[in-house]
Amino acid sequence: MAVQPRVLKGFRDYLPERMIARMRFIRRVQECFERYGFLPVETPALELAELLLTKGGDEVARQVYRFTDSGGRDVCLRYDLTVPLARMIAQHGQALPSPFKRYQIAPAWRGEKPQRGRFREFYQCDADIVGSDSLAADAECLAVGCDLMAAVGIDEYRIRISHRRILDGLAASMGVDGADAHALYRAVDKIDKIGVEGAVAEIRKFAPEVAADALKGFLDLNGVIDSLDPLVALDETKRLFGGRGAGAEGVAELRGMIERAAEMGVAAGHLAIDISIARGMDYYTGAIFETIAQRMPELGSVMSGGRYDGLIGTFSGKDVSAVGISLGLDRIFDGLAEEGELELPRSTAKVMVTLFDDEGRAAAHALARRLREVGVAVEVPLERRALKKQIRAADRGGVPYVAIQGPDERAKGAWNLKDLRSGEERAFDEEALIARLGERGEGVE
Amino acid sequence: MAVQPRVLKGFRDYLPERMIARMRFIRRVQECFERYGFLPVETPALELAELLLTKGGDEVARQVYRFTDSGGRDVCLRYDLTVPLARMIAQHGQALPSPFKRYQIAPAWRGEKPQRGRFREFYQCDADIVGSDSLAADAECLAVGCDLMAAVGIDEYRIRISHRRILDGLAASMGVDGADAHALYRAVDKIDKIGVEGAVAEIRKFAPEVAADALKGFLDLNGVIDSLDPLVALDETKRLFGGRGAGAEGVAELRGMIERAAEMGVAAGHLAIDISIARGMDYYTGAIFETIAQRMPELGSVMSGGRYDGLIGTFSGKDVSAVGISLGLDRIFDGLAEEGELELPRSTAKVMVTLFDDEGRAAAHALARRLREVGVAVEVPLERRALKKQIRAADRGGVPYVAIQGPDERAKGAWNLKDLRSGEERAFDEEALIARLGERGEGVE
Repeated sequence: MAVQPRVLKGFRDYLPERMIARMRFIRRVQECFERYGFLPVETPALELAELLLTKGGDEVARQVYRFTDSGGRDVCLRYDLTVPLARMIAQHGQALPSPFKRYQIAPAWRGEKPQRGRFREFYQCDADIVGSDSLAADAECLAVGCDLMAAVGIDEYRIRISHRRILDGLAASMGVDGADAHALYRAVDKIDKIGVEGAVAEIRKFAPEVAADALKGFLDLNGVIDSLDPLVALDETKRLFGGRGAGAEGVAELRGMIERAAEMGVAAGHLAIDISIARGMDYYTGAIFETIAQRMPELGSVMSGGRYDGLIGTFSGKDVSAVGISLGLDRIFDGLAEEGELELPRSTAKVMVTLFDDEGRAAAHALARRLREVGVAVEVPLERRALKKQIRAADRGGVPYVAIQGPDERAKGAWNLKDLRSGEERAFDEEALIARLGERGEGVE
Repeated sequence: MAVQPRVLKGFRDYLPERMIARMRFIRRVQECFERYGFLPVETPALELAELLLTKGGDEVARQVYRFTDSGGRDVCLRYDLTVPLARMIAQHGQALPSPFKRYQIAPAWRGEKPQRGRFREFYQCDADIVGSDSLAADAECLAVGCDLMAAVGIDEYRIRISHRRILDGLAASMGVDGADAHALYRAVDKIDKIGVEGAVAEIRKFAPEVAADALKGFLDLNGVIDSLDPLVALDETKRLFGGRGAGAEGVAELRGMIERAAEMGVAAGHLAIDISIARGMDYYTGAIFETIAQRMPELGSVMSGGRYDGLIGTFSGKDVSAVGISLGLDRIFDGLAEEGELELPRSTAKVMVTLFDDEGRAAAHALARRLREVGVAVEVPLERRALKKQIRAADRGGVPYVAIQGPDERAKGAWNLKDLRSGEERAFDEEALIARLGERGEGVE
């Protein structure tokens, strides 16, 4: 054995059983985006490092796959779909409608430590609205997000919502700003990993006096509002800030967004205010969301996003409003597969047209051709083997039907169609067989 | 302007107009593969260099994106989908059916000189049959190849066919073998770029005496057989080798393959024997194909492949037969787009539900929701503007219908549906409107 075949750590092969289900999953996500009029785009896997790394933050810079290409350019693999979108808008925005609603379903790469639900190559499913500062845009992201959850079969979930201005208000109440404020957001964001004690310890480094008290009030409140109707929770949050300043502005924006989302059909029960979420990326400026699937809380956030009004301006020099939501495909897919909630079809073919004898080969291929013309997926064995073996291969391969024509049927132009799930077998003339298999909604599609 | 937004040379953004058409194109290719029972798989974008670079040849090694990752591993971006398939089969073959028919539609990367129809990031659409040495497998690749051409709207094309054993026979007739034989194949393969004179000059370097004469006979023949029925062309080719040795074996295999392909419905007119094609990769062992679209010959081969029985053994130590065909998506898509033969829809939405006044917003969203539930893609403006502007935005965005409800219609629960292509406008009650827009085969799908 010359070279031991293996994949890189944190990367995966998708064999057909997973891949068929995965493609159907992706298709449902895509249809969901399209039902809201989001338009597909694609950006390159590889971009100039100076463009991608302007706004990701330190953690991203550590994780990104970065190298010098043979032309001496400093390049990296995209680590998300948001920064490339911003670059694209800055470059091509004038050729695009405004507001512009795009979706993209594509892989991104980060060299982070592989762990459950985290891979170095992972798919993101992103929908973003660029060029609208209306709260209706934020609300539409929530609405499409709820439809996404339904489309992938997750009924019990909560989209946890906060606002960068609420965090700004918290920072102000602690008397920190600038780089310290960003350090505060990152500490708050890590509470579920490092605990309240850990977050307080981090914050004390730059705000030794006030941190513990202010943070305690904040966290106490968070424990209370979690179970409240989001609009009531916002009232509580507003009280924390005395109804003034950045915090109160954030509260008001979230209120507007949630009211708009309700008009769009978003149930309040799927939303929760959680002022401890901050999101890792430095580029968020407004509402921020994370989503917990209640039966799979260990997966962490399965869908997240927010408003990032400053990002595109980094490239274009001109501020453009933007808000988006991103579904973590791999995390959800794996979670559902582990819970046994995904059908894993082994085949895309609906019927195997068997080869009874060599004389029947031309007829088998002719039938296969006619079935394919009406859109039916057909397998024909490459070699004639014992009929029993052909049928067993179809059954093992998850092909639901086999068509058999022995000399008697051939004389009549007929085929026996056997349903391998029920064992039932029935004779059809060729036209009837094609009509039968061509029926929509039958078999495996 | 902090950072000038741009993409790397040889890479592209796909904006919606191209992307919608491209996704439909990809979907047609996918359906085509599935109609033959090919199963989808996905392999990582990044693999260990020692695995990917064992079999690509020198040209590939020069072009591949290769770097050391932060863990010190020598990695590269895949440059095709065939070598990763071989690695995957060696690794997971026992979990897969045999023969195994897989398809994959995915990007690959090569740092080659960008030129018309050649990009550094490009999609390949591959179908391969692994684990069958039957000529029916080669023939099925031709059959699915012909269906692919029809599916993407190319009617006039020729799949040019040769066989590695025919080239072996040629090499033997010139008295060259080993590395010289490979150099010969590469020289032959470049005839369309460097001309007959150029190829002869290259071959003279290692076969100074016989080259010119033998090659001349070979090329004279090739000129003749191009226009012949492929089976007749094979008789002529067989005569060149005196009916003996490797060349004659190659001829016999191609005959078997073409006869099988005919049974599967492949028209002889789409096939041509062309013994000057050799394919760049070193791994081919049997039949080799390249496809010229007659109205776009300048694109070069748009679909190619062949049999590579030795490749998987490089990884597994155990020989496994394999044959495949690969469609060059970008090249064909761009060619068709330039010829104006692709519809380029600007929208995925079928209807814009307009906002007549703020009182109507809830009703507009309620209608949008009901339409989405029956699978209709709906846009609702994020902000209310003058109705005329909303309609103009829909029209510019390529949305074919707008639904309008003023106070009069609202009182009756009715909507006016305007077809922006014909200008026709008609009132519907809400149920009728949903039924009308929900009809399949209507509008833009």
